[in-house]
Amino acid sequence: MLPDGMSKELQLDHLRGVLVRLEETLIFGVIERAQFAVNPPVYARGGLGGALADESLLEFVLHEAERSHAKVRRYTSPDEYPFFDDLPAPILPVLPYADNPLHPHRINVNARLLALYVRDMVPFICAPGDDANYGSCAVIDVHLLQALSKRIHYGMFIAESKYRESTARFDAMIRAGDETALMTAITVPAVEAKLFERVARKAATYGSELANAGEGGVDPAKVRAIYERWIIPFSKQVEVAYLLRRLDAAN
Amino acid sequence: MLPDGMSKELQLDHLRGVLVRLEETLIFGVIERAQFAVNPPVYARGGLGGALADESLLEFVLHEAERSHAKVRRYTSPDEYPFFDDLPAPILPVLPYADNPLHPHRINVNARLLALYVRDMVPFICAPGDDANYGSCAVIDVHLLQALSKRIHYGMFIAESKYRESTARFDAMIRAGDETALMTAITVPAVEAKLFERVARKAATYGSELANAGEGGVDPAKVRAIYERWIIPFSKQVEVAYLLRRLDAAN
Repeated sequence: MLPDGMSKELQLDHLRGVLVRLEETLIFGVIERAQFAVNPPVYARGGLGGALADESLLEFVLHEAERSHAKVRRYTSPDEYPFFDDLPAPILPVLPYADNPLHPHRINVNARLLALYVRDMVPFICAPGDDANYGSCAVIDVHLLQALSKRIHYGMFIAESKYRESTARFDAMIRAGDETALMTAITVPAVEAKLFERVARKAATYGSELANAGEGGVDPAKVRAIYERWIIPFSKQVEVAYLLRRLDAAN
Repeated sequence: MLPDGMSKELQLDHLRGVLVRLEETLIFGVIERAQFAVNPPVYARGGLGGALADESLLEFVLHEAERSHAKVRRYTSPDEYPFFDDLPAPILPVLPYADNPLHPHRINVNARLLALYVRDMVPFICAPGDDANYGSCAVIDVHLLQALSKRIHYGMFIAESKYRESTARFDAMIRAGDETALMTAITVPAVEAKLFERVARKAATYGSELANAGEGGVDPAKVRAIYERWIIPFSKQVEVAYLLRRLDAAN
């Protein structure tokens, strides 16, 4: 979550710091999840009998975590977005995020993220099959999904920062509804290439500590691919979606 | 949690792998927590007004997490110990841990761990003061406490492994109730020195990635000190406590 003062929330060096910190969380989440097989019953509604009513085990554990975190006001922070929309009200007094830098918006891509995670990312990260470690997997999945959600929604802060740097240029593209031009404008291939190199290097570093201990770790090329295929494209889609509504009247 | 088969749970290379993996979790937990100030209201009963009844914010969030994890049978695993004793029953069928290698025991040092964490570790890790990020701190604390608890209770697996290697030698010390001899027998200074070096090196590696991004990280000497002062001594106390009751009749 953001520092409550948020005085520096749009400075690019602060944004970069937050995203780099999230890289560690994401890489470790991937390494943790890769210990276990895909375990399809974690993701199937009714996969574990009738005890969970109409939720999968993952949905159940995620829902419980969000109910608890909502009570301590996690989702009142402008950089935290829930997967569920029926959460309890905070029991702590809500902090005034007076200097929330984002334009009012209704973006929440977590439904798509959850579907993508279960359908594409888990099978990419994990060996196929079922090793019965359902509870461990669901707990790791929740941690990883929360970090993925934060990373991807952070696209809005990045977009706002870029918008303020080149307002007139972006305004023209937004008024024209030109999604392609917006996507081109926010894309800096050299920065992306550096990022992919950095996460692969980190995954190699962290993985080698685990490999020394016979614990495997995860292929650095896979971590890089997760960023290339899913995290960065998804984050950029959020940037564009946010920018497209940047001139809408606040309501 | 342990692989459900547990066929290799006492092999020293497997134990070592688990403990090395926990090092990453612990180091990252410390780095995450060090972002924020001590924030005393997180730990005071009534520190946040009457909404939490008689629990501190940390106790509240930890209790909620444990209720949820108990439902998915986290605490039926022989390497997971809860902080609260009033948790709901699992809603998933409990797995048979037929080859739980531990002698039956009633060890749970989490009450002491929680007190130590709040009184000594948080002020050691964090800058003094209050930055109002109470929810973030409580969520990180829960993650870190769960990892610390697992690491410290893992002493029982280490102790059982050592006991099986030198049963006759340990039996004599146990029958004499000689705690000092047991502590000496389980202590291998060269192994401890290597461990302290390794965690300091990892903290330096991981911290340097964050420092490059202007995010600080944490002093590697502090991570080393956390292992030297608290984690290893506490884990060894658990080893000795477990061994002292190793010859008791199972009941």
